[in-house]
Amino acid sequence: MKIKNIGIVGLGLIGGSFAYAFKDKGFVIYAYDIDKGTLAKAASKGIIEGLTDEIDVFLNFPLDLIYICLPIIDALSFIKVLGERKVAIPITDSLSTKFSIIAAAKKYDLLFCGGHPIAGGELSGFDKASRDLFIGAKHILVKSDNLLLFSKLKEIHELIGMQVVEMNASLHDDIFSLISHLPHLIAFNLIDTVLTENISALKYTGAGFKDFTRIAGSDPVMWANIILDNKDNIVEKAEMFIKNMEKWISLIKENNMSSLISKISDVSNRRRLL
Amino acid sequence: MKIKNIGIVGLGLIGGSFAYAFKDKGFVIYAYDIDKGTLAKAASKGIIEGLTDEIDVFLNFPLDLIYICLPIIDALSFIKVLGERKVAIPITDSLSTKFSIIAAAKKYDLLFCGGHPIAGGELSGFDKASRDLFIGAKHILVKSDNLLLFSKLKEIHELIGMQVVEMNASLHDDIFSLISHLPHLIAFNLIDTVLTENISALKYTGAGFKDFTRIAGSDPVMWANIILDNKDNIVEKAEMFIKNMEKWISLIKENNMSSLISKISDVSNRRRLL
Repeated sequence: MKIKNIGIVGLGLIGGSFAYAFKDKGFVIYAYDIDKGTLAKAASKGIIEGLTDEIDVFLNFPLDLIYICLPIIDALSFIKVLGERKVAIPITDSLSTKFSIIAAAKKYDLLFCGGHPIAGGELSGFDKASRDLFIGAKHILVKSDNLLLFSKLKEIHELIGMQVVEMNASLHDDIFSLISHLPHLIAFNLIDTVLTENISALKYTGAGFKDFTRIAGSDPVMWANIILDNKDNIVEKAEMFIKNMEKWISLIKENNMSSLISKISDVSNRRRLL
Repeated sequence: MKIKNIGIVGLGLIGGSFAYAFKDKGFVIYAYDIDKGTLAKAASKGIIEGLTDEIDVFLNFPLDLIYICLPIIDALSFIKVLGERKVAIPITDSLSTKFSIIAAAKKYDLLFCGGHPIAGGELSGFDKASRDLFIGAKHILVKSDNLLLFSKLKEIHELIGMQVVEMNASLHDDIFSLISHLPHLIAFNLIDTVLTENISALKYTGAGFKDFTRIAGSDPVMWANIILDNKDNIVEKAEMFIKNMEKWISLIKENNMSSLISKISDVSNRRRLL
């Protein structure tokens, strides 16, 4: 298995940044996107060998790897298309949840190994893509039955400066529900609460609030997709968060200064180590 | 009333930054701090005319204004000392909650007008102080009976580049419980929840999580003080946040994609305007 020609599906922030990063390392990049404006922008950068908004044209490019960088629902539809056409090209993806896409690929018996680059933030779109987005970032790869594909994917992601971590799909979705999906839900809910309670308070927010809620500016369709795709884990973590919050509220109601100082110290010390 | 000589009580991040900023504009700075190490560091910067760890010495400096920049409990003790000595020098403060310090100053009939600079973040200590911390930042001033002091304070804070906003103490404490104290409590609780649930997940956190939890690295004593000083507002806001969170959880359990997209869109659009 040789990977030289990479076909990127979806030229958003992640797909676009992979296009730049792999092109820089000598790969040949092809791309599929349904948005003609995005295709025109990407064409003007001169980094992509073949661009199209037609799946048939895309699948006729000489691809060694298909890299799906779409929101979850679109990614699952794309997997279905590939499955129905019995595409034999190796496939990977960049989705923030891993369980459902791996199950879909397995159902169609595709040559698939799933991944998740830990990079991106609240920005989106090809305009925000950057050749440096992934440098030093972790890339989670889910070891599948396709060990050769796993090791090739490990190799090419390390080549663009990423640190590859192997993890199974269930653990991945559990961990990221806690450290990524729950924080997004909390940030959405905080802004929602402020909008409901006292919208004019937003005039007085400082740098702390802005950093804290930066992720609340994320793409709505992508995040509604992520939340529902990982709903059991997220609901579990959100309910745990609420239960814990009620313990803090009790300490506050009791005026328990020493416990509050001790709990904030634990948290603050641990946070400063990140 | 002329303000030329400013006596800063507590040379932490805020007190130290005010020392730099006012010194740059030609004010003469005096300071009181109980920590000899801090006094030595401040002395080495050559910006402070007189430094001491003795209250009597401090009060004998030719002060036109006493600027209290201490955690709340220490600030309340300092107000008591000033009150018992019937100090007639004008006084202001930088506390994040306004109701209790204003009540204390009133009890002792001090010439007091409270303030709250919206700047700082999770850093603390004189080492982190900066002459630029307040440039462009808002400074909340609580209009008191001392109108002349209010207008003088407005003038000197504008001189160092701050935008002065007048607000009453109850409204201040209500607004900041929502946009500052609640977010801190949430950030503390999120880290606490991760520590309890799966501490090893912290290995996989990206830039989003780090920004989101930056405020959880704040000073424990200062924040336990703030939370308890503003407990009624904070408990009310935290309970409202939980109630709202339960609505999000319901939408997730119902697989309500369209409501989730619409709610996240509202939040995301509003956040991007900040």
